[in-house]
Amino acid sequence: MVRLKGFEKLTNVDDALQSFLGQLNPKQLGSERIPIHETLGRVTAEDVRAKDDLPRFDRSAVDGYALRAKDTFGVSAFKTKSFKLTKDKVNENEAKELWTGNPVPEGADAVVMLEYTKKSEGKIELAASVTPGRNVAKRGEDVTKGNVAILASTRLNPHHLGLLAALGETNVSVVKKPKVAILATGSELVELGNKLEHGKIVETNRLVFSSLCMELGAEPLNLGLVKDNLEEIVSKIEEGLEQADVVITTGGTSVGYPDLVPLAVNKIGKPGVIVHGVAIRPGMPTGLAILKGKPVFVLSGNPVAATVGFEAFTRPTLLRLLGVNETRPAVEAKLTRRVAGALGRRVFLRVHVFERSDSFFAEPVRVTGSGVLTTMTKANGYVIIPENREGIDEGEAVRVQLFSSIVRE
Amino acid sequence: MVRLKGFEKLTNVDDALQSFLGQLNPKQLGSERIPIHETLGRVTAEDVRAKDDLPRFDRSAVDGYALRAKDTFGVSAFKTKSFKLTKDKVNENEAKELWTGNPVPEGADAVVMLEYTKKSEGKIELAASVTPGRNVAKRGEDVTKGNVAILASTRLNPHHLGLLAALGETNVSVVKKPKVAILATGSELVELGNKLEHGKIVETNRLVFSSLCMELGAEPLNLGLVKDNLEEIVSKIEEGLEQADVVITTGGTSVGYPDLVPLAVNKIGKPGVIVHGVAIRPGMPTGLAILKGKPVFVLSGNPVAATVGFEAFTRPTLLRLLGVNETRPAVEAKLTRRVAGALGRRVFLRVHVFERSDSFFAEPVRVTGSGVLTTMTKANGYVIIPENREGIDEGEAVRVQLFSSIVRE
Repeated sequence: MVRLKGFEKLTNVDDALQSFLGQLNPKQLGSERIPIHETLGRVTAEDVRAKDDLPRFDRSAVDGYALRAKDTFGVSAFKTKSFKLTKDKVNENEAKELWTGNPVPEGADAVVMLEYTKKSEGKIELAASVTPGRNVAKRGEDVTKGNVAILASTRLNPHHLGLLAALGETNVSVVKKPKVAILATGSELVELGNKLEHGKIVETNRLVFSSLCMELGAEPLNLGLVKDNLEEIVSKIEEGLEQADVVITTGGTSVGYPDLVPLAVNKIGKPGVIVHGVAIRPGMPTGLAILKGKPVFVLSGNPVAATVGFEAFTRPTLLRLLGVNETRPAVEAKLTRRVAGALGRRVFLRVHVFERSDSFFAEPVRVTGSGVLTTMTKANGYVIIPENREGIDEGEAVRVQLFSSIVRE
Repeated sequence: MVRLKGFEKLTNVDDALQSFLGQLNPKQLGSERIPIHETLGRVTAEDVRAKDDLPRFDRSAVDGYALRAKDTFGVSAFKTKSFKLTKDKVNENEAKELWTGNPVPEGADAVVMLEYTKKSEGKIELAASVTPGRNVAKRGEDVTKGNVAILASTRLNPHHLGLLAALGETNVSVVKKPKVAILATGSELVELGNKLEHGKIVETNRLVFSSLCMELGAEPLNLGLVKDNLEEIVSKIEEGLEQADVVITTGGTSVGYPDLVPLAVNKIGKPGVIVHGVAIRPGMPTGLAILKGKPVFVLSGNPVAATVGFEAFTRPTLLRLLGVNETRPAVEAKLTRRVAGALGRRVFLRVHVFERSDSFFAEPVRVTGSGVLTTMTKANGYVIIPENREGIDEGEAVRVQLFSSIVRE
């Protein structure tokens, strides 16, 4: 009589994701050309090739004098040499004054730094020798015309923007942001700011998942909050499928009476729910569905379980849609106390990573209930305990995936 | 005769920063109350205390039945027991149906999961025992009324937003964004999109530093691009000091003729330039100044040297203004080839970190000139080689500070 109800079988996390992504054949998000100063954090839709060499001409890398390297051979602090100053091209034993970035004039093949020279009427005295090419940034040294400067599927950071500007690109073709419609379900929930009657709880999941989507470069859409009502849930999911590339629901996915969202999903169409019940802790009631070729994530109403479901499934799917293959930053840290695993389930352990004497430590955040919001705010990363581990010992080195920065103690 | 000109003395990086921050006594940025959904990435200006307990009532953590734990003692799959269903408070040998999040009724002190029960007309058959408190999220368990839920100086992530919403906070007091005015100088530079005559270069630093400021949660202001003209530079820096909390200049800071920015700064007021010439590579001509109590960063015109100057000085100063003490994410990685240090100078080595067979490797990005923009786009992190190291050997473990994500190979 034990386990009268419940998930008959939990699907392994990797199997669930693989089977889901295998059946999902999402439409391309498409691309848009936008001004370069709006592209921070966006993903390139195509290779960006240099329309010209960068630098566009041989350029001085220092402040100094352009000259012919061979004219400096044998010159040193003990055997200085005079060079005639010129304003034009450089001939034998001539030098031309240059500042960093100036074109290296015809005839010259090297630049000597200002520090090794002494200027006087119409000439300089040189106190060092240089080799050919010294202090010259050669034309095309950074990027050669026609070559790829930035690959497609690159998440643009400030330095990419600098390179694009240097290449003269005023607009860049980036992958359109995936639109993610987010629905909250649960008769016990109320909108933030409304009166809380006894037994009512403020709905927080939409704000959390909107924010997580924004961090990934997706555009969240708020589908609202509905009660545990099948018709309303069906109608809202359909609205989400109309407006967005991805739908997320939270709540109504346990196996009891309010298990309405999987029902609603399957009422809408095929294939509907592909996975329901995952061998993950927390996040076991997570469901993965496909409707109209779009991914639908049926997440728990429990904020922490829902977050883990998002991390394990929604995040990799959004990155797949965007075309980037990036991981969260990770640190190796020593676990400060033994933690139990859950044989057969993958555990997302929330830890607080801190640095002490140049080493990182991961302190598991103490949890009494899986609904405890502060476990997410006290933590700054996850340790993933594999399905085959009974636990991890104190002092063992673990890989922590960071979702928030490490604060210096 | 060697070293005729140049910086007479280079200041050690730590000494430079300490002396600068010591003399800088910046005005508080002040705070503003803004709607919670606009606070992602912002920094709390004050402790947020819970106005009520969270949860606000004893709450079921599962779908199941509330009852008195002591009534279940001795119950097992081999010795089941009947409980009478009630709609009201729970008396001896009674149970009340609950869904996750529902209030635990008076009289009950535990919840049994649905899976361990079988429901029939007016009663359930129970097949497991529970201890008091089991599956109950106690009132105040997450945060107790009056206690601090989120500390001041916390950079708000999606989970903080969820917690704030759960606490009923619709608006949050955050530190005002520091305004950073950015000026580019250099007669050889032109605005992106304009015609490039021979010898001209597109100005890229303002875009890079604007983006870096935005990533840190600061608000960039574009002061424009001026030629190597003392009066113009003075006037623009003064404009920046009027409008912003911080000023950044790029270009005109080497020791040759165009060394105009330090001159301009010192013309404006006291104390002016505090440090000029830092024992750092690249970034040696970096200057640190204070005018009207505001920090002024005199960065190189060279994009890579300027970036390192920003990283070493501007970034920690902006974080100090915001009141957060956070570090970049860092990984330990094995260096793939030997690199030279520069005795007496701190080297910011650009590396590309990748993951192979569950280990991280750091490949130094090959550089021919320090102005090469692609060294920043090929790299995803820095290794800092200390002043006292001649080099780092192949295979040695290094700490890499990541500025971009690690892409799975």
